Amino acid sequence: MNAEADATPFPERRRPGGRSARVRAEVLAAVEQELAEHGYDGLTVDDVARRSGVHRTTIYRRWKTVDALLVALLEAGEDDTWAPADTGSLAADLTALNRELHASLAGTSPTGAVIAAAFRAPAAAAALTRFWDDRYQRSAAVVTRAVTRGEIPEDTDPDRVLMAATSPLFHQLVLRRQPMTPAEADRWAADAAAAAVAGIYRA
Amino acid sequence: MNAEADATPFPERRRPGGRSARVRAEVLAAVEQELAEHGYDGLTVDDVARRSGVHRTTIYRRWKTVDALLVALLEAGEDDTWAPADTGSLAADLTALNRELHASLAGTSPTGAVIAAAFRAPAAAAALTRFWDDRYQRSAAVVTRAVTRGEIPEDTDPDRVLMAATSPLFHQLVLRRQPMTPAEADRWAADAAAAAVAGIYRA
Repeated sequence: MNAEADATPFPERRRPGGRSARVRAEVLAAVEQELAEHGYDGLTVDDVARRSGVHRTTIYRRWKTVDALLVALLEAGEDDTWAPADTGSLAADLTALNRELHASLAGTSPTGAVIAAAFRAPAAAAALTRFWDDRYQRSAAVVTRAVTRGEIPEDTDPDRVLMAATSPLFHQLVLRRQPMTPAEADRWAADAAAAAVAGIYRA
Repeated sequence: MNAEADATPFPERRRPGGRSARVRAEVLAAVEQELAEHGYDGLTVDDVARRSGVHRTTIYRRWKTVDALLVALLEAGEDDTWAPADTGSLAADLTALNRELHASLAGTSPTGAVIAAAFRAPAAAAALTRFWDDRYQRSAAVVTRAVTRGEIPEDTDPDRVLMAATSPLFHQLVLRRQPMTPAEADRWAADAAAAAVAGIYRA
């Protein structure tokens, strides 16, 4: 669920569009860091320019507003090659997913700042909705693979399994603002897998 | 999960402290309505004074800032007599809880605005955390009653049952900003009850 996306790795050799892509990656990496450090209220094009080393007029020409930078950061997450881990079991796949999500929501990543910013900027909110929808769609593979392996019933609803595993992390860490240990995140993954095996998320 | 709390009903007869309590109720009701209509950015003491009919100097003397009004609104929710429905079955108790929560998050209540405001004002965030902790603590009765009736295993963890039922509503409606039908909210309640019966939330 990390939005850093195309920011790394940079292509090693120049290719058509290489400079433009590099500028974009540098600017978006700076947006992420500025957000994490100063939040949405402290996010300015000038600071992004200073941190990225990209001239402010270049940034203004391409993105125009702070909100557009935020949207670009979120959209970069949709372009990337992120895919859920394929470990061979539903419980372990969901655990891998929840560990990544836990690190992103509980750690020092800018995810919390991006979520907070989405409450301020409607365009960012829409981009965040698209980003998460995209991640949940990709993650559905975890459930369909478990169906193929015969671990869970054929008519299991992938979205309910994924929401059961991940929603408690979002709710507890982001909205209730309560700590959660990695072991608790693992347990939510185990609970969702066990409930799916018990046939609770059948359509 | 509605924060309107003591705003209604008003005591019918004057009693010691009656005027002060009435002023508080009128001011907090106005804060709720202003938040719902204009959000945190549009919340001003002057508008609260106009809507409540309470003089602005009275409001400033008692609460001083917009953030203090928000905290008072949330703390009013902790004083009230809210209790979860006692229907006689775990599934129906959780369904009642989720219907109330769904109405609050999906409807026109100010809950969404309060949640958004908590991302702006740290004092409001802390008050919101306390408000939800209080509601989850009261709701634990739903699970302990089910244990007493022998519906679910004795060592069922109340918080996990409640989080399993309610987290998807918060995540889908507030963070993913996707619609959810009342029938879906009911299904999350049914899923949590079925998983609890299956022993998935044992300590």
